[in-house]
Amino acid sequence: MLQVSQEFETGYVVGADIGGTSLRLALAAMDGKVLGKWKVSTTGIRDPHVVVRLITEGVDHLLQQNSITRSLLRAVAAGAPGVTNVDEGVVIATSYLMGWRNVPLRALLEAKLGVPAAVENDVNVAAIAESKIGAARGVRDFVFVALGTGIGAGVVLNGEIFHGMNWSAGEIGYLLVPGTPVTPVETGEPGALEGIVGGEGIKAQWRSVWREDLTQHPRELMATQVFDYAQAGDRLARQVLDKSAQTLAYAIYNLAIVLNCPLFVLGGTVGMHPALWSATRDILAQRDKRVQPDLLRSTLGADAQVNGAIHLAIEAANSRVLTS
Amino acid sequence: MLQVSQEFETGYVVGADIGGTSLRLALAAMDGKVLGKWKVSTTGIRDPHVVVRLITEGVDHLLQQNSITRSLLRAVAAGAPGVTNVDEGVVIATSYLMGWRNVPLRALLEAKLGVPAAVENDVNVAAIAESKIGAARGVRDFVFVALGTGIGAGVVLNGEIFHGMNWSAGEIGYLLVPGTPVTPVETGEPGALEGIVGGEGIKAQWRSVWREDLTQHPRELMATQVFDYAQAGDRLARQVLDKSAQTLAYAIYNLAIVLNCPLFVLGGTVGMHPALWSATRDILAQRDKRVQPDLLRSTLGADAQVNGAIHLAIEAANSRVLTS
Repeated sequence: MLQVSQEFETGYVVGADIGGTSLRLALAAMDGKVLGKWKVSTTGIRDPHVVVRLITEGVDHLLQQNSITRSLLRAVAAGAPGVTNVDEGVVIATSYLMGWRNVPLRALLEAKLGVPAAVENDVNVAAIAESKIGAARGVRDFVFVALGTGIGAGVVLNGEIFHGMNWSAGEIGYLLVPGTPVTPVETGEPGALEGIVGGEGIKAQWRSVWREDLTQHPRELMATQVFDYAQAGDRLARQVLDKSAQTLAYAIYNLAIVLNCPLFVLGGTVGMHPALWSATRDILAQRDKRVQPDLLRSTLGADAQVNGAIHLAIEAANSRVLTS
Repeated sequence: MLQVSQEFETGYVVGADIGGTSLRLALAAMDGKVLGKWKVSTTGIRDPHVVVRLITEGVDHLLQQNSITRSLLRAVAAGAPGVTNVDEGVVIATSYLMGWRNVPLRALLEAKLGVPAAVENDVNVAAIAESKIGAARGVRDFVFVALGTGIGAGVVLNGEIFHGMNWSAGEIGYLLVPGTPVTPVETGEPGALEGIVGGEGIKAQWRSVWREDLTQHPRELMATQVFDYAQAGDRLARQVLDKSAQTLAYAIYNLAIVLNCPLFVLGGTVGMHPALWSATRDILAQRDKRVQPDLLRSTLGADAQVNGAIHLAIEAANSRVLTS
């Protein structure tokens, strides 16, 4: 038992975050302490085998950089941008950008790296990180809302990720709230909620209200730029911010009603924007007194995914030692 | 161990359903088999001590009727029409009709009857019954939607009632969906969703569209009558049915998105109406192919609550035997 415990202390794990534009890796000790990070562009890369090869390259790079031999690597884990069967280690489906269908990512990683691997949806790994070392530390029930190009949620109930029957709980981009369109959407199309509050939805809102005589800012903006200009006093941008915050507040209110959970954590580049956070919080505060969840911004930001993956890798390493 | 098991077989439990208009009791053997039922009006009765006295009278009546001595009563359980702390056995709050606040119902029952007692929210006990012997038997994740005067839901995740932080998960009467009003409501007021789809909401819808020249039916109808007339071809009643089904379908769709759960069970006098069930199911079938939960009607109907309470009473009896 002592030997096992020493092995833990001398081993290392790697957490990976597979994104549509970049692949991020972090090497950590068995206590979760991050020793090094690595990042590479994935733009245009769709083939899972190429992604796995890139992960292997990153792992080797991080180990060499820290003068660690490959034999001390205990496990890896990866967050994948799609519906993921955690038990089977299979990425069931990603968005059209990657186009993955039933990719046995865990098996591919284990075959390539020769250590236990774990895989999980990227929003869920971020939620795990917020739960362990971030804004939701010590909170039993909370929802991590990731707002980037689209929207997704990691639902943590009784301290565990709640996955649902087909591993797709928390796909809140499809929620119907007052003000969202109600027409059914096809698979792959943006959902009703993310069509308004997702990064692309916010850009589209801006384009639809934009008029040259109403603002000094250009018609093509990033979602975060719209929020920056709203904060700086642009009235048209403020209008888009207010509608986004209102719609997001309806969605959060609904989740708080159904799950009776005390905390929501906003993450992702759009979700982290202080103007959206503060406007949404103000709207929630004006609703029923009975339903007043805390709304916090992620404390881990872009590091949430790799940190959550590190946590899963440590779990995978420990469970392999204990069961084999 | 054999002795304990024999004790189980010879013992009996009582399940109670405390409602705003009636109190229902059922006596059952330790295998759940119902031996007798009892019912009394509770209209105008608010005092929890009076309710507990009525339960005691009912228990004694049922035992005598079945020639069972009081010493063979093993446990009782009650479903209460309000937010209930199951761990502490306290009804935290009911609607204004009963007006209960922090009523230690479990302690009152145990003191009066001298056997272990359990308490739970009435919608949750109905969900438990559907899960054990009703429409959701064998389904790990599902939502029981109770539609009577108001609306509530029993959320079953991983085979267990999910209660949330303050024991009020599933209060879906407050959900905001396209078409519901968005003005914040005060505690005690009907929620946004139930203002449209609850029994009172449906009656209000009918009154608001009613015109003497448009229908042969009177302006004051019960919700189920509106649905009866819709089924019989009244166009105005059909309009109310369609709006109710559409709004209910939005709510169910949202729950299915968040929880990724495969089954919804409609209960309650309004929810059991075949016209509402079939119209809602048709609307759900027209939405995304990805999100197609089954929609079933309760198979237990008005017996769901007492049956769920019987299940909880058996659990209470068994856990007392095992732990004391």
